[in-house]
Amino acid sequence: MHKTVTVDMGESVLEHNRALARANREHLKEHGVRAFDFLGAVGSGKTMLIERLADVLKAQGLQVGAIAGDVAGDDDYRRFRKKGIRAANVNTGKECHLDAHLVEHALEELDLMKIDVLFIENVGNLVCPADFPLGAERRVVVISTTEGDDMVRKHPVIFRLSDIIVINKVDLAKIMEVDPKGLVRDAKTVRPDAKIFLTDARHGKGIKELMKAMGL
Amino acid sequence: MHKTVTVDMGESVLEHNRALARANREHLKEHGVRAFDFLGAVGSGKTMLIERLADVLKAQGLQVGAIAGDVAGDDDYRRFRKKGIRAANVNTGKECHLDAHLVEHALEELDLMKIDVLFIENVGNLVCPADFPLGAERRVVVISTTEGDDMVRKHPVIFRLSDIIVINKVDLAKIMEVDPKGLVRDAKTVRPDAKIFLTDARHGKGIKELMKAMGL
Repeated sequence: MHKTVTVDMGESVLEHNRALARANREHLKEHGVRAFDFLGAVGSGKTMLIERLADVLKAQGLQVGAIAGDVAGDDDYRRFRKKGIRAANVNTGKECHLDAHLVEHALEELDLMKIDVLFIENVGNLVCPADFPLGAERRVVVISTTEGDDMVRKHPVIFRLSDIIVINKVDLAKIMEVDPKGLVRDAKTVRPDAKIFLTDARHGKGIKELMKAMGL
Repeated sequence: MHKTVTVDMGESVLEHNRALARANREHLKEHGVRAFDFLGAVGSGKTMLIERLADVLKAQGLQVGAIAGDVAGDDDYRRFRKKGIRAANVNTGKECHLDAHLVEHALEELDLMKIDVLFIENVGNLVCPADFPLGAERRVVVISTTEGDDMVRKHPVIFRLSDIIVINKVDLAKIMEVDPKGLVRDAKTVRPDAKIFLTDARHGKGIKELMKAMGL
C-alpha cells in the first residue's frame, strides 16, 4: 500500500522541485554565476576535485563559491573555507540529497555578486540526488576506482542523467585491481553521448581536460 | 509544505516496516537462521567481507545464504552464487535502501531449511538504510579507508544504529593518507559502546575477530 502513496507524493514533490530549480537557475543567471552540480558516492573525491578546479579558476582571476551538502557535519564546508572559497554549509538531516529549496536558501547566504563559478556538492551517494535538479547548468557525476568495477552497472540512472562523468583516483586503479576502461565502457553503454574523463585529483591530473568539457 | 506531508507519510511507513521486520525475525528464528544486515557505502567492501565470512563458515560445515540488495543489476548476486552461496537478488529500482517487505519476498525465494547464516547486503549508502530494520539479529556497518577520514562525522545516525562497526581496506590507509585511529575515535564518540574492527577483506585480515564479535 505505502508504495502507491509514495509515488503519488513523489510526483508532486518532484514537480515542485523542478519549478524551484528553474527559479534558482534564473537567479544565478541574473547574477552572472555559472553553477555545477557535483554528484557521487562518499569518498569518490568530489570535494578534492572542486578544490583543484577552484585553484585553477582562482589563478585565472575568477571568484569561486561552493555549497557543501551533507547529511551532517561541516567537514567539506571547512575544507572549502580553508581554500578561500566562499561557501555555505547545508545539512540535510535525514534526507539523502539536496533539493532546489535547500539550494535556494544556501544561495541567500552567499554573496552572488562576488562569485563567478559555483560548485554545488551534493550529498554523497549515487541514488537519491538523481531526480532532483538544483538549478545548475550542468551535472558532473564522480566515481572512483576504489569503489570497484561495478559502480555504473549498479546505478545506471544517475549516469544517464549527468552531463559529464568523471572516473577519479585512477592512480589507485592497479592496486584496486580495477580497470578504468571497463568503467568507461559501462558508462558509454548507459550514456552513449557522455563526456567521460579520467582524473587523479589528489595529484592534479586530468583537471584541465575536465574544465574544458565544463566550458570553463 | 511537502516536508510535513513526507514526515507524516514517513512515520506510518516506518511503523509498518518495523512490524514486518519483527515478522521476518520470527520467520528466520523458526528456521534456525541467524541473519546479519550489512550496511555501508558503495565500494566499502561489503560483498567481499561477506565472501570471506562465508569461506570460514563453510569450512566449519555451516550453510550460508545471502540477499544482494542493489538499486539495479546483479553483480553482487552473481558473485555470491559463484562462491556457492545460496542467494537472492533484490533490485530496489529508485529506492535507496532495502525494507522489510522486500526482504520478506527475498526470504520466500531462499530455502531457509538449508541456510544456517544469512547475510543481507543492503543498498550501498550510509543514509537511507538507517531507519529500516529488516529482521536481522545484528547490524554491521562497513566503511573503508579509501572513503576518507570524515565518514563517521558525516553519517552519525547509521553508526549510532549499528551494533558492529568495520573499518575495511586498512591496507590502503597509508596510501590514502587516512589514519584509521581517527575513524575509530569518531566511531567511539558517536557510539561509545560500539564494537569496532579493522579489516583488510581482500587479504583476509581481521575476519576471525569480526566473526567472534558477531557471535559466529
